[in-house]
Amino acid sequence: MQDKPSNLPRTQPDGAALKSIIDVMLERRATMHFAPDPVPEEYLNAILSLAAQAPSGYNLQPWRFIVVRKEENKRRLQAVAFKQPKVVEAPVVIICLGMKEEWKERATEVFKEGAERGAGQTDAWQQTRDGAIGFITKALPMSVWVTRHTMIAVTSLMLIAEAYGYDTAPMEGFDPAGVKTEFGVPDEAEVVALVAIGRGVAPDKAYPGRFALDQIVYEEAYGEPWTQDT
Amino acid sequence: MQDKPSNLPRTQPDGAALKSIIDVMLERRATMHFAPDPVPEEYLNAILSLAAQAPSGYNLQPWRFIVVRKEENKRRLQAVAFKQPKVVEAPVVIICLGMKEEWKERATEVFKEGAERGAGQTDAWQQTRDGAIGFITKALPMSVWVTRHTMIAVTSLMLIAEAYGYDTAPMEGFDPAGVKTEFGVPDEAEVVALVAIGRGVAPDKAYPGRFALDQIVYEEAYGEPWTQDT
Repeated sequence: MQDKPSNLPRTQPDGAALKSIIDVMLERRATMHFAPDPVPEEYLNAILSLAAQAPSGYNLQPWRFIVVRKEENKRRLQAVAFKQPKVVEAPVVIICLGMKEEWKERATEVFKEGAERGAGQTDAWQQTRDGAIGFITKALPMSVWVTRHTMIAVTSLMLIAEAYGYDTAPMEGFDPAGVKTEFGVPDEAEVVALVAIGRGVAPDKAYPGRFALDQIVYEEAYGEPWTQDT
Repeated sequence: MQDKPSNLPRTQPDGAALKSIIDVMLERRATMHFAPDPVPEEYLNAILSLAAQAPSGYNLQPWRFIVVRKEENKRRLQAVAFKQPKVVEAPVVIICLGMKEEWKERATEVFKEGAERGAGQTDAWQQTRDGAIGFITKALPMSVWVTRHTMIAVTSLMLIAEAYGYDTAPMEGFDPAGVKTEFGVPDEAEVVALVAIGRGVAPDKAYPGRFALDQIVYEEAYGEPWTQDT
């Protein structure tokens, strides 16, 4: 493992200020068509490095990302993603995976090094590790657990890319078995999402509206609508 | 449904600038202990309203949130959340749910109103709705699908709260059956996470490290380590 990333770009590539998360949440749209302009290496690294700081249960980080940029590979991905044009148009498409087994192999590194960094008892990390593995494997289906955590990193990645001024398109229109075959992904992986990153070509899709807070937020108990001013 | 929220606070409650998403990703820690200071209504509304702008497949928004603030209810929640002290200490704890059935009942509103807002053909929204429901119910287990989408809103909520200067603690240490019983949640719901929001009491947990990019990012195919400078 390693320390926090440093020397990250603090502006958009053209020097404009980072977008605030408020603007990102209000202005982001799932981009339908992308221009071919590449995402500079420095920015792609920053997006990935920051997404990798996402939290996860016991810091187990079950997420893995395949960065697809070569034309021929984007075409192969498109063929298992319902032929969506944006998969080939976007300069970068990231295949987001949650590993249902491999995280257990890496748990020793996570708990041992975590303890050495002060986040656990150095003489008890084996017991903590074994307890964590036991809890997770019993608490819920592994596909749900890896989806839960991988989506923290995927959502972070999308919002960070948007803050740097890029447009994104998260996708769930794909055949997971086809993605695994085409990209050599172990069968144990859950293919959680695809995320395209680049510069959108106007126009965006129209804003379709959202449920009002009193339709989705309850106060103190399920079914008691949130009555605060919205 | 409704339009985008407006009149949101653009600073932290004390007037300080919003934190950038870079600082949020680098500085955020899962808070262990909270001070009792309440989260002002205006900020809690803004956090929820912005989280509700999260994207979801077909805009179906399967997430629901129960805001728990009353002492007696926090104690009941704590009893089904492995007695974690932060559940009672934090001024706000949000129970995050993904609805495995109810989203279908709301699909008519989503597709009809979406089409009226320009995000679909007004004469074909019923077919689009039926096709979406068919795709989703066949593509993957419903518990995975609602977790995928609910976690986009949950992650957004956490990052927005942090940008407003609050501390957060996402939790997966709870008994979902107990949460449902105590808070009147229908059995069809997936209890995806609890999120505590408030002001942390120092010290934070130590930073436990993260996998380096060449441990979690692959280039063009699974197993080909990312070799860019990190």
